[in-house]
Amino acid sequence: MDSMTRIERSLSQALALTRDSEGPPTLVTAMRYSVFPGGARIRPRLCLAVARACAEDAPELSAAGAAAIELLHCASLVHDDLPCFDDAATRRGRPSVHKAFGERIAVLTGDALIALAFQALARAAEAAPKRLVDLVGIIARSIGAPAGIIAGQAWECESQVDLCAYQQAKTGALFAAATAAGAAAAGDDSARWYLLGERIGEAYQIADDIRDVVSSEHELGKPTGQDEALGRPNAVHRLGIGDAVARLEGLVQSALEVVPRCPGAADLKAHILGEASRLLPRELARPAA
Amino acid sequence: MDSMTRIERSLSQALALTRDSEGPPTLVTAMRYSVFPGGARIRPRLCLAVARACAEDAPELSAAGAAAIELLHCASLVHDDLPCFDDAATRRGRPSVHKAFGERIAVLTGDALIALAFQALARAAEAAPKRLVDLVGIIARSIGAPAGIIAGQAWECESQVDLCAYQQAKTGALFAAATAAGAAAAGDDSARWYLLGERIGEAYQIADDIRDVVSSEHELGKPTGQDEALGRPNAVHRLGIGDAVARLEGLVQSALEVVPRCPGAADLKAHILGEASRLLPRELARPAA
Repeated sequence: MDSMTRIERSLSQALALTRDSEGPPTLVTAMRYSVFPGGARIRPRLCLAVARACAEDAPELSAAGAAAIELLHCASLVHDDLPCFDDAATRRGRPSVHKAFGERIAVLTGDALIALAFQALARAAEAAPKRLVDLVGIIARSIGAPAGIIAGQAWECESQVDLCAYQQAKTGALFAAATAAGAAAAGDDSARWYLLGERIGEAYQIADDIRDVVSSEHELGKPTGQDEALGRPNAVHRLGIGDAVARLEGLVQSALEVVPRCPGAADLKAHILGEASRLLPRELARPAA
Repeated sequence: MDSMTRIERSLSQALALTRDSEGPPTLVTAMRYSVFPGGARIRPRLCLAVARACAEDAPELSAAGAAAIELLHCASLVHDDLPCFDDAATRRGRPSVHKAFGERIAVLTGDALIALAFQALARAAEAAPKRLVDLVGIIARSIGAPAGIIAGQAWECESQVDLCAYQQAKTGALFAAATAAGAAAAGDDSARWYLLGERIGEAYQIADDIRDVVSSEHELGKPTGQDEALGRPNAVHRLGIGDAVARLEGLVQSALEVVPRCPGAADLKAHILGEASRLLPRELARPAA
């Protein structure tokens, strides 16, 4: 089964835990709406690529880890779009959750997706309970304080911002969790997989900055020019477009260099290069090296 | 060490994971503010009372389970107080989190406390990893959809409300998690401990309804008369004060009857009776039977 099919199936299995018929219908509908149809599922695909590279022997657990990371990513999008943050009207080409279901349901949808991520993880861990300790720790740290995606969002509320801590937390943390969780689910030492995720996260952040400046709203499915409008740091404003693209290419290269020794290192590097070639708007992309 | 000391220590250990000096300072401050000083810590004390009754052999794990439940309770209070929900200006006799730190930090504080609950659990589970599977499942289910406290809050957004599902989810779920998690942390069969928590939760809900009608704002540390103001169901409005108090006493009695066989059943029953005597405003309380 290909990665995308495994991820969508694992997400569906997680959402099935909400047992539509019993829960409050608007919340349950909004949870599904936040997760399906998805974006590129870039974090969970990275998680599965690492699990495969580590010769995964508990595929249900790695799929649940990948789904948990995607659920947490979706939760963060729902809360980031709230009126008190970005007040975004659209997401993935449709009304954002608070526009479609109201602000109260949007707050609760984010909360419930966080809970669901851990519920799905626990459910898949019966066969390998020892790995759950590592997985829950990796994933909970990657969203919380001091350095997870929620902390990253909270840096936007500070007048004095540590830019490096902000970007590492806001974007890097969940990519690092994707590589570490993929390894942990496969029984590998998760500690040696963080650096790879951090570098890929940094590359993704720069690509996101570039798209915010260069892409059209239609292409992106959400408003562009948001960093400028909201006063957020953007690498293109700092470096110019040419240097930002060069920096992105350098980061992809340095990610390839820190792939740990593992049975499937070659395939994993091919995955990273393939992903990198999709990161840039078409008019800026060069063929992958 | 008494329960209250264990709980405060375990909560402090959990909060220490946010490593104040590294994270965004307002978020980290608001997280502490939401948790300390606390209320009666009624749920974590119930969790520890059950663990003790089951002859706990992993005290760090039961303390972490108790702390996780309290962190999730605090998270729900922060989000319930938000402008889009109760818009409460005070909590525990002080400004609510959104009044003290702003709405954005209040959203993130609730989110980060949920993450912290699972992080603290995982950290304490090294010694007994198999129990973590059960614990994470119990606790995640008790907050999410279809029947956890977040789902309970979401019933308030529905025009057609299943009153029983609403109250069981909004209040009962976390009490049931407290008894089940106490048992799971001690290696007992958690399934047989849910009913006790549900009955205690129901008793607590009625006591809360009574206090909302009878107590003063000063005594309660938060606004009273909120159920009427916000159109929420309240047992006193439905039954009258006399029958509501009788129903509460009946529920406490029926809770005592469903305490599962365990080494410390007598002490646990004494704990439940002691708690029950504190549930009512002083002028309504009768000596415990």
